[in-house]
Amino acid sequence: MKGRKDMNKVFFIIVLLGVPLSAAGTFLGWDSTWMFGVYSVTILGLASYIGRSTDSLSVIAGPRIGGLLSVTFGNAVELTISIFALAAGYLHIVLAAMTGAVISNLLLVAGSSFFIGGIKYKRQQFNIYDARHNLGLLMFSVVVSFVFPFIFAEKISDDEVLWLSAGIAIIMILLYFAALFFRLVTHRGVYAEKEENGDKEHETPEWGKWKSIIILATAAIAVALVSDQLVDTFEDVAESFGWSEVFIGIIIVAIIGNFAENIAAIYMALQNKINVSVEIAVGSTLQIAMFVTPILVLLSFMFANPMPLVFPTEALISMLLSVFLAIMIINDGDTNWFEGLTLMCAYIIIAIGFYFI
Amino acid sequence: MKGRKDMNKVFFIIVLLGVPLSAAGTFLGWDSTWMFGVYSVTILGLASYIGRSTDSLSVIAGPRIGGLLSVTFGNAVELTISIFALAAGYLHIVLAAMTGAVISNLLLVAGSSFFIGGIKYKRQQFNIYDARHNLGLLMFSVVVSFVFPFIFAEKISDDEVLWLSAGIAIIMILLYFAALFFRLVTHRGVYAEKEENGDKEHETPEWGKWKSIIILATAAIAVALVSDQLVDTFEDVAESFGWSEVFIGIIIVAIIGNFAENIAAIYMALQNKINVSVEIAVGSTLQIAMFVTPILVLLSFMFANPMPLVFPTEALISMLLSVFLAIMIINDGDTNWFEGLTLMCAYIIIAIGFYFI
Amino acid sequence: MKGRKDMNKVFFIIVLLGVPLSAAGTFLGWDSTWMFGVYSVTILGLASYIGRSTDSLSVIAGPRIGGLLSVTFGNAVELTISIFALAAGYLHIVLAAMTGAVISNLLLVAGSSFFIGGIKYKRQQFNIYDARHNLGLLMFSVVVSFVFPFIFAEKISDDEVLWLSAGIAIIMILLYFAALFFRLVTHRGVYAEKEENGDKEHETPEWGKWKSIIILATAAIAVALVSDQLVDTFEDVAESFGWSEVFIGIIIVAIIGNFAENIAAIYMALQNKINVSVEIAVGSTLQIAMFVTPILVLLSFMFANPMPLVFPTEALISMLLSVFLAIMIINDGDTNWFEGLTLMCAYIIIAIGFYFI
Repeated sequence: MKGRKDMNKVFFIIVLLGVPLSAAGTFLGWDSTWMFGVYSVTILGLASYIGRSTDSLSVIAGPRIGGLLSVTFGNAVELTISIFALAAGYLHIVLAAMTGAVISNLLLVAGSSFFIGGIKYKRQQFNIYDARHNLGLLMFSVVVSFVFPFIFAEKISDDEVLWLSAGIAIIMILLYFAALFFRLVTHRGVYAEKEENGDKEHETPEWGKWKSIIILATAAIAVALVSDQLVDTFEDVAESFGWSEVFIGIIIVAIIGNFAENIAAIYMALQNKINVSVEIAVGSTLQIAMFVTPILVLLSFMFANPMPLVFPTEALISMLLSVFLAIMIINDGDTNWFEGLTLMCAYIIIAIGFYFI
Repeated sequence: MKGRKDMNKVFFIIVLLGVPLSAAGTFLGWDSTWMFGVYSVTILGLASYIGRSTDSLSVIAGPRIGGLLSVTFGNAVELTISIFALAAGYLHIVLAAMTGAVISNLLLVAGSSFFIGGIKYKRQQFNIYDARHNLGLLMFSVVVSFVFPFIFAEKISDDEVLWLSAGIAIIMILLYFAALFFRLVTHRGVYAEKEENGDKEHETPEWGKWKSIIILATAAIAVALVSDQLVDTFEDVAESFGWSEVFIGIIIVAIIGNFAENIAAIYMALQNKINVSVEIAVGSTLQIAMFVTPILVLLSFMFANPMPLVFPTEALISMLLSVFLAIMIINDGDTNWFEGLTLMCAYIIIAIGFYFI
Repeated sequence: MKGRKDMNKVFFIIVLLGVPLSAAGTFLGWDSTWMFGVYSVTILGLASYIGRSTDSLSVIAGPRIGGLLSVTFGNAVELTISIFALAAGYLHIVLAAMTGAVISNLLLVAGSSFFIGGIKYKRQQFNIYDARHNLGLLMFSVVVSFVFPFIFAEKISDDEVLWLSAGIAIIMILLYFAALFFRLVTHRGVYAEKEENGDKEHETPEWGKWKSIIILATAAIAVALVSDQLVDTFEDVAESFGWSEVFIGIIIVAIIGNFAENIAAIYMALQNKINVSVEIAVGSTLQIAMFVTPILVLLSFMFANPMPLVFPTEALISMLLSVFLAIMIINDGDTNWFEGLTLMCAYIIIAIGFYFI
């Protein structure tokens, strides 16, 4: 647990310095390239607090309510950034953030935890039933639900695309809740393997109930405020670094938004709890694909520019390739350093591609 | 068996009323929207008689001849409707009917039987070797054989596309018969699991040999006659309901044509014989993809407009997505209500898409 | 072993006649259609000597150096033909040769050995961990690394496509060596199954160290010289047979280049060593996709026309379909004659398609 505590101290210092600096910089109008860095690191620190308070509440509230909490707050950063971008009419930034979250969870978070865990342990194994359940949903959400409106968008009117998108979004959200119901109620433990019962030690929450709620609320509001500022710096940063906005949205923001999850997944892999790492990586991807993205599609109807569920070609293909590779690697319930490296190499290829766009 | 007998009574009444009404309506020129309903329900009833007489003959003739019979009559409705559409030059209706049969078998028939069976039983398991054999063929037929001419059609002349289509059609039919030879002759029982031997109770045919043949012949002729009339109503129905012809062809006709199979698959799932449900759903898809479709391609050379094996983009993509999702769900040899629901949700998404086209 | 010795005699005679005939024909300017045949058969004979000397050296040097040798010389024919084509600026011939090698290894070499082995043995089984390791890399290389630049090529400038290609090529080569390191060093034997230890009998090299090196060097130089001439005959052959250059590059050259490997794979299948056949087919595909192709991309920067890693649509789709089918068939670790036939049928379909282009 020591490594984790040290990490938590680092996040504490980041928040202690980052929040006042973000506030100061915003009001004093500091250079936006520099503020891009400040906002990013601050969000990264705050995300760790959101994650830890959600974890504590999950332990306190039990797995069912905990599951719902984790759905709502698990990708709070991505959701918050996206709602601000939606309100500002930057639909392409929303889709880029979703794409980035899917790709970085599947390739970078899973890849780095398989790789680092695999350097310590020759083979790490996890429950293939849980993994296949999740991979089936990945196929449903990314391959079926995202590809389908993309193909149909060329044949039907823009209004019909919006109705189709709304219909798909509603079906995805319902199926996502059905999946929670399946895992937490009707089939709780049905597919469990015997050795998995040793996980009980986790059951002590880090913080008490009210402390968790206050930290969660404060951190969530802070993330919302900082995210709003972050989105506004994209244009300037894109110009001064020579990065495209797409590269910032898909690669940089995703690395920042997933940093806390990434650390947690690697930490779990080093404890030989690779099933938790897989759950973080794939579970988080599914939250983005089956819950956050459809919610954003539905919310967008309240704003001036409704957002159809139609990703740009390169974004969609990158997600598809990530899903196919992840299915191939994860499907056998066995990981090692080489499988992790393969996923990371795919991430680097995609990052290079978006750098050039 | 009681539920099945009640169902059979319903089909008896449907045929008893539907056949005279169809005849009367055709000769008296009743409104075609209304007749669309009458024809559809009549075909649905007749399909159940074709299915039951084929089953009886299969039991009487043994598995080898029975397999051939089931190939020939198993999708008699789709084949008959399609030959009439082919003769009338409605090539797009033929391809739509094939697409609809593939999608509805894989997603609706399999999905509803997994879902309803899964509500009664927590987990249902089937032989993964048989399933993988079938899924390999699905990959061969839909992914390889259907995608390939689609891509090449843009680079070669229309005549060459026809020759390529004919070549692929012949290879598919030969491989389909090789698959029957493999399962019924060289590898009969090689991949069987021990518990599967309890299936013997089925071995009493419902009807005798000659009764079955007479019922089969009569029902097949009746289906042919009614189908011919049904195809003619499409245009009017499309207009009065605001449905596209594509939606009728891919969604409505497929639900009607597969209704009897769908009932049988659900019935088997409720008897915990999920392997039979999978066989009905995937086996029927393979009959359509590897036997009926190629036969229609070859038959079309006898008519004025030969039909290339080139599906419209949306139809092809919908089949591809269905196959990928079905492979992911079926590959592990284990089903539950949630897997069924996932398949059904994919079907609903595709149905909404075709509604808008 | 007798069948193999007879085969070796045939190859000896081929080389004995082929090399002088090739030399004579080249200097005397014989008809190029006829010389196409002479060159092809000579290369086929020489390839068997390269294969056997590499095998002998692998046994002598141990598996680690042996693995490196096999990487370098395993696809010497394809590499040599391609470098000459690259120098001559025939980039499409290089990409066609790579495509042909991938498709024919996955479908023809694997298919024919599963089919012929399956006629002798009802079921043949191999280590699924090794197979899945290789299939994961196939997904990485063909599906991720080849598709990605294809999609991005439309959005970025030609120069950027070249940089992206170079980046991907370097990553692929590094990952290929990491895969060797994984299999030969860190995870040697980790995924082995117990029965596999009976392979020891192979450990006597056919030839001594120096004899092997001399044969290897001589055969490699001879292949290089003959390949150079072979490439020059393509245009005339295409014209006189009515074949397209694409058909020659993708189908004919691949069959010639893989002939020795194909014989070896079938021979191993008949010895019930189907794991060696799979290793030959899939391992060779990976060499082409992850080592030879990226090396050619990097080498091409030294010539006038650098080659981007962008395959023509039909070539890319054909590879994708082959990979998906092969994954579906190979993934279960169990083969039979029907699975072999399915792969071969897919090969025939693709060959017909390229015949028409």
